[in-house]
Parts: sequence; structure tokens; C-alpha cells
Amino acid sequence: MKYSVPALARAIQARLIGGSDTELTGVASVRSAKPGDLVFVEDEKFLPAALNSDASAVIAGEFAAKVKSQKALLICAHPRLAFVRAAALLSPAAQAASGLHPSALVAKSARLGNEVAIEAHVVIAERAMIGDRTRIGSGTVIGEGVKVGTACNIAPNVTIYPKVKLGDRVIVHAGAVLGSDGFGYVRDPKTGRHDKFPQIGELEIGDDVEIGANSTIDRGALDETVIGRGTKLDNQVHVGHNVQIGEDVVIAAQTGLSGSAVIEDGAVIAGQVGIADHVRVEKGAILGAQCGVPSNKVIRGPGVVFWGTPARPIRQYLKELAVLARLAKKT
Amino acid sequence: MKYSVPALARAIQARLIGGSDTELTGVASVRSAKPGDLVFVEDEKFLPAALNSDASAVIAGEFAAKVKSQKALLICAHPRLAFVRAAALLSPAAQAASGLHPSALVAKSARLGNEVAIEAHVVIAERAMIGDRTRIGSGTVIGEGVKVGTACNIAPNVTIYPKVKLGDRVIVHAGAVLGSDGFGYVRDPKTGRHDKFPQIGELEIGDDVEIGANSTIDRGALDETVIGRGTKLDNQVHVGHNVQIGEDVVIAAQTGLSGSAVIEDGAVIAGQVGIADHVRVEKGAILGAQCGVPSNKVIRGPGVVFWGTPARPIRQYLKELAVLARLAKKT
Amino acid sequence: MKYSVPALARAIQARLIGGSDTELTGVASVRSAKPGDLVFVEDEKFLPAALNSDASAVIAGEFAAKVKSQKALLICAHPRLAFVRAAALLSPAAQAASGLHPSALVAKSARLGNEVAIEAHVVIAERAMIGDRTRIGSGTVIGEGVKVGTACNIAPNVTIYPKVKLGDRVIVHAGAVLGSDGFGYVRDPKTGRHDKFPQIGELEIGDDVEIGANSTIDRGALDETVIGRGTKLDNQVHVGHNVQIGEDVVIAAQTGLSGSAVIEDGAVIAGQVGIADHVRVEKGAILGAQCGVPSNKVIRGPGVVFWGTPARPIRQYLKELAVLARLAKKT
Repeated sequence: MKYSVPALARAIQARLIGGSDTELTGVASVRSAKPGDLVFVEDEKFLPAALNSDASAVIAGEFAAKVKSQKALLICAHPRLAFVRAAALLSPAAQAASGLHPSALVAKSARLGNEVAIEAHVVIAERAMIGDRTRIGSGTVIGEGVKVGTACNIAPNVTIYPKVKLGDRVIVHAGAVLGSDGFGYVRDPKTGRHDKFPQIGELEIGDDVEIGANSTIDRGALDETVIGRGTKLDNQVHVGHNVQIGEDVVIAAQTGLSGSAVIEDGAVIAGQVGIADHVRVEKGAILGAQCGVPSNKVIRGPGVVFWGTPARPIRQYLKELAVLARLAKKT
Repeated sequence: MKYSVPALARAIQARLIGGSDTELTGVASVRSAKPGDLVFVEDEKFLPAALNSDASAVIAGEFAAKVKSQKALLICAHPRLAFVRAAALLSPAAQAASGLHPSALVAKSARLGNEVAIEAHVVIAERAMIGDRTRIGSGTVIGEGVKVGTACNIAPNVTIYPKVKLGDRVIVHAGAVLGSDGFGYVRDPKTGRHDKFPQIGELEIGDDVEIGANSTIDRGALDETVIGRGTKLDNQVHVGHNVQIGEDVVIAAQTGLSGSAVIEDGAVIAGQVGIADHVRVEKGAILGAQCGVPSNKVIRGPGVVFWGTPARPIRQYLKELAVLARLAKKT
Repeated sequence: MKYSVPALARAIQARLIGGSDTELTGVASVRSAKPGDLVFVEDEKFLPAALNSDASAVIAGEFAAKVKSQKALLICAHPRLAFVRAAALLSPAAQAASGLHPSALVAKSARLGNEVAIEAHVVIAERAMIGDRTRIGSGTVIGEGVKVGTACNIAPNVTIYPKVKLGDRVIVHAGAVLGSDGFGYVRDPKTGRHDKFPQIGELEIGDDVEIGANSTIDRGALDETVIGRGTKLDNQVHVGHNVQIGEDVVIAAQTGLSGSAVIEDGAVIAGQVGIADHVRVEKGAILGAQCGVPSNKVIRGPGVVFWGTPARPIRQYLKELAVLARLAKKT
């Protein structure tokens, strides 16, 4: 897509200084920008590099308003957010060509919306429903009775177990598994063997959720696993059965959530965090990388960062580390 | 399946109190139970909720025998275990319809048992053997000479490398990889480059094993990797080459076992645990979440829980945490 | 392949003692060796077992030169390295039969090299290029404009997103995902919702790289993610956007690298390590299992092992552990 600088400035509600006849054709980093590209700067110290780049326009904070430059400057309060919105206009995600590939297998009772893109070797089982403008990538398997909303983007080689429900505009990256059995057994005290607890619940994923590559999300055991609207999961995240995740939660790579954990709205969980069963992470809480939250604990939020295993307020954790380092030095 | 309450009580060897003409059609949680459902209660404090639910019958411990209720009560020593067995009768796992999908590709020398369900786009290579009543999910790839036992359930998009052997009633969830190369290299001291050590051993998986979604299990380097009967692996578990896992072991999500580790029968390993090479985890040992066991260590079992990195008896670990917190408070 | 002992000794530049008329047909461990097999011993204490095995020849260090034995002894400075090279001669990796399976779907503008092996249900999109003698395993999906070099081995059910570039002799194990979107969002301070940062960069993987099963490697956001020549990644490794990994780096299972981390040549990173964003791990640095490196830190190399979270020199970490254990004992 092409935008004149003034049109783009209007679209992202930025104040334009200079450069009014330039045409923008894409976004880039300062390092790799070419003419026609738009870049952004959040920190004044990186402004000279942006101005010296080949970019045609620079989104920047108020700090740039006083600078003399040949380049078009788009001044706004949140340069990164403005850049993201400009990128959505200039470099929209490639829309898969709609159509049903002849090698795709769609069961008779499945229902496909308008303008869907069903790629090669896809399997869609009985009674599944795929919403309008949704893409199902090659080799993805959609189980019986699954419901996928509109404008979703399901990458190749994803597996969705029966009866899972996805909202609208959900993005699922390659290799993710949605709706697998939870990990629940009962040990027979006589034999020591493990009997499988029924894993017959459901999985509901809200609108605008994104799920990373090779992540796995289990269905509920008897009830349901829920992932709320706008929540983002990175690659290789594990979500156990009956977990309840709220809205706008962010969970980084390789974090694991055990059964029946509750993560409230707006929580931010870093990478490789471990959350045991029946934990509650309160609204807006922040968990540092690799920390561990033991069973049944409540993590208070918002405002305090927790770190360590068992997770504790980061100030306390850092103090403990300092005390320990001092003691070790003395010996 | 439908059972009268008395018939079900007999089948699970529970003592029946009341409700003899009710018919049971399924299992549920107390929260979501509908008429016809069976629920269970392990803890007396949850009994009132169960009695107030819409469930038609309640499995409970001896504590419920004295209670007055309209509902059928099934009294037994292990309510959860009884519930699991009742569920196996009332809600048996859906059996895939047997048959060979026309899009599945089965090599000429492969042998399929009776009543197998080979789903769409499956690939079964030369000399592979699939046992009676086994299901192979859509998109799964079975390598040359693989042997899958009877009544197994292999989900979609699984990859089984050549020559892997699976016992009977094995469950493998979507995206799992069985028999990949182990991670072994020899560094050439002159060039600093890594030469691949041969990874030509085997992988043997016993009866009644369950393997979680996107777990990866490497074949042996020169000898074999072995997973014993009845062992259960959660999602995203990693098992390195030449690992020996005994029987009835439980390993939670995202745990990793390095090469040549030995896990003896009945060990319980929580999530995100790291086990280095040549570790021995003794019979019945318990490892807490996120703990780490360094190379060549032996973890004693049973009875003591280990925690922390390096893993130590939990009493010691908790004492250390308490001492440290106290010292930090003083400063 | 068959080699006479003298021919093999010459090929791996070992000094031969005895056994000149034996023929070698394979490699094995000492435990499972059969006649015709070659084994190796690095440590003198395991030499008697090797000499008592059924192997036909033994690679060993200088310590074995004085021993009396009926077996052929191949004496060299680095027995393990010599064994690896002998294995490459005696048990070369099975070459997939070249050919294009009729169920594979290759777009018109894609280009296939000579003697490629394109297996069942493979999908190769427009403008992709597959080099000579490369194997693409069943069910693997190759995106638009992807370039795969010569003599690569891509296992089944791999997903390669558009425009990813792989060098020559790259091995990718089953279920790996190359080129997925990085994890980048900008939070709108008004709504609390997360807008997706553009993930439109590239991914370049050098020659002789090996990538483990179910590993995930994100493309760059605006620039590129790079994995250098000869680097080896174990199973379930996660590499975030814009990460730069040098040459001959080794990264064990379940380790995660956050966005824009830099790992210099020859670094060795153990399993379940967490590396935050913008970390630099210097040339030859060594990171112990499960350690964590916080944002923007530099890990010095080579020579010192780092351990713990936050990662510190192992001597310091062990001292701290010892001090803590002593204090806890006193209380």
C-alpha cells in the first residue's frame, strides 16, 4: 500500500513537520531503511541515526520537534504505537488467496464461510465450522465440531482437537496443538498404576488471541479451559487443563501453566515461568523470567514484579541475592 | 453408555445408599452436572455442593454415609479412583471409526491389523506394522519398520522415525516426535567444528504409555532409549538419547531428560524439571517443579521430595530460603 | 559399507596394532557390539570391557598401545572423534531415495534441484528453491520463496514460513518451525490492548546447522534472525526474533533465546537456559543448565562457566550455595 506522508500522518494522528510530497511504501528499521520507508525513534539518542538513514519519514516523540531535518517528521506521544498502526496500513499482513485447494478434505457436514482459504492437504472433520475470510494452512487438521471464527489465520501443521472453539481474528502459528487431553491420572494404591482421569471438557479461545508456534493448550478435564480476548501466547507455551486466562494477558515463550491456574486480565508473564496448579495471578501482575509459583499461591498485582522460585517481590529477591553474595565473598 | 445406579455401584464396588431407580448417562464436575450425571467428592467440605448439584449420583468417602440426601450415594474408600473407573464405563473414549482413508498412503510391505483406523493423509512406510484396533490420526507419518501395537491411539501430525517400537494401548498426542536423533557431537579441537556422533540406536515404548502433545523422544545413539510400561509424559517433555525410564513413572510438562539418565519405576517428576546426563532417579523418588539435577547425581527415593537447583531435600531447601529471607530483612 | 581394518585405520589416520585381516561392517557400543563392529574407548578403565566384547576392532588412546590383545587396536589421540569419522564411513546416514512422490504438491514457479527426494504430501509453494540431493520429509510445508540448499535433510511435518533461507547440509528434525512471527506487541495505554508489531523480517540459517525436533525459530521483526554455520540446536529450543547466533554454537534442549540476543561463535549453552532480550554471550562462553541471563547483560567468555539465575561465575555460585547450606544447618 502507498500513502502520502500527510495522509499517513492524519491516519495515525501525528503532527507532521516537513516532507509533504514524499510517498511512503513500507516500514523498516533505521538500519535497513530504504527510500519510501517509514521508521520510528522512541529515544532521543537514536534520532541522529534515523535522520541519517535512507528512510523517507521518521515517527518520533516531542523531542524531535525542534530538530532541523530534510526528512518528514511525524511527531506523536507514543512513537512505537504510531509505528505499529502505520505498519498495519503500509504493510498489511499478506492475505492468503481464498479458495479450497483440491487436495483439502472437507467433511460433508462441515460448513465453510465466504472467502476462506483452505490450503493443501487440510483435513476438516464433520460438523466443523470455519468463518468468513479465515485461512487454514497446509496440513492443518481440524477435528469434529470445531468452530473457527472469522478472519482467523491458522498456520500449517496445526492440530485442533474436536469441539474446540476459536473466536474471530485468532492467529495460531505452525505446529500448535489446541485441545489435547490434560494430564490427569489417579494412582491405584494397590498396583501403583495410573488410571486416566476423564479429559472430556472443552477449550474456548477468545477473539484476537495469538498463539505461538508449537504451543500446546489442553482441553478441560470435566469443565473448560478458557483463553480470554486479546491474550497473546509466545512459542512453546504450555497451558494445562481447566486453566482460565483473562483478557489482554501476555505470556512469553516456554512458560507452563498447570491445571486450574487462573491468570487475570492484563497480567504479564515472562519466559520459562512455571505456574503450579490452582495458582491465581491477579489482574496486572508481572512475573519475571524463569520464576516459579507454587500450588495454590496468589500473586498480587499490579505494580510489583515477582521473581525467583518460589516467586517473591523482586526487591526482596534482589536483596537476598545481594546478602548472599556478600556472605560468600567474606568466606 | 447407560448404567442404572445399582449396576454402576456394583461395577465400581461401591456401597450404594438410596436412589436405586436412577439411570446414569455420564460423568461431570459438580459445577456443571446435569441430571443423569455422576460426580465425586473427596473432601467432606465439598459434599453439600455435590448434594445441591443437578447430578443424579455422588461418589463419596465414608464421611457421606451418615448424610441424609435424596441423591444416590456411592460410598467407597477412594472416590477419585472409583470416579475414574465409572467414567471409563459411562464415557468411554470415542473409538475412531475403523477404515483406511483413501488419501492415506500405506507402503506395500507395511502390515495393518484388523479394524485399524488410518485417517486422512497418513503416511506409513515400508515394513511398518500397525496392530489391531489402532488409530493413526490425520497427517501422521510412520517411518520404515516402525511397530505400533494393538489398540493404540496416535493423534494427528505425529512423526515416528524409522524402527521405533510402541507397545499396546499407547496414546500419543498431536505433534509428538518419536525417535528423532539424539544431540551428540564431537568437537574437533583443531577446527572448533562439531562432528555428529552416530544416532543409530532404537526407541522402545512399553504398553499403556501416554505421551503428551509436542513431546520429543530421541532414539538411542548406539543403544536404545526405553520408556517402561504405564509411564505417562505430559506435553512438551523432552527425552534425550539412551534415557531409561521405568514403569508407572509420571513426568509433567516441559521437563527435560538429558542423555543416559535413568528414571526408576514409580518416580514422580513435576513440570520444568531439568535432569542432566547420567543422572539416576531412584524408585519412587519425587522431584519438585523446576528443580535441576546435575550430571551423574543420584536422587534417593521414595518418600523425600527434592527441590531447587541443584536439587536437595525440600526440608533443607525451605530452611535455606527461610534463613536467607531473615538475613535480607535485617539489612 | 565394508572396510578392512587397515583401510579404515588409514582413513581415520589411526595407528593399527594387530588384526589386519578383519573386515568391519558397522559401529556399536561396547555393550551391544557384534563381530564386524568397531567400538571406541576413551578411558583406560573401560578398555578391558572393550577387549572382552564381540567387537572386531577397538579405537583407543595411547594407553592401549601396550596391551596384549587378539583384537585390532586403532590408536589415536582423540578416540571419540576418530570413532565419529569411522562411523561416517561405515554407517553413513541412510540416503532417501530420490524422486518426487506423486502426492507432493510443487508450485509451478518452484525449482527443484537434481536428485531431490520430495516425500509424500509435501507442499512446496511458489518461487521456493530446493537444492540438489536435498530430502523433504512427508507432510513438510515449504512457504513461498523459501530457499533450501544442497544435501539438506528436512524431516517430516516441518513448517518453513515464506522467504526463510537455509544453507547446505542443514538438518531439520520433525515438527520444527522456521520463520514464525516473533513475539512483539505494543500496549495501547488507553485500552490496555496489545497491537501486533510488524514481523516482516527474515531468517537465515547457515551451512551445516542442525535443528532439533519441535524447535521454533522466529523470523526477524524488521531485520533478520541469523543462525551461523555449523551451529547445533537440540530439541524444543526457542529462538526469538532478531537473534544473532554465531558459528559452531551448541544449544541444548528447551533453551530459550529472547529477541535480539547475540550468541557469539563457539558458545556452549546447556539445557533449559533462559536468555533475555539484548543479551550478549561472548565467544566461547559456557552457560550451565537452567541458568538465566537478564536483559542486556554480557556473559564473558571463554573459560568461565556461568550458572544460576541471574547467571554468575560457577565458583561464586557454588560458594553461595555452600554458605547458605552452612547457615541453614546451624539454625
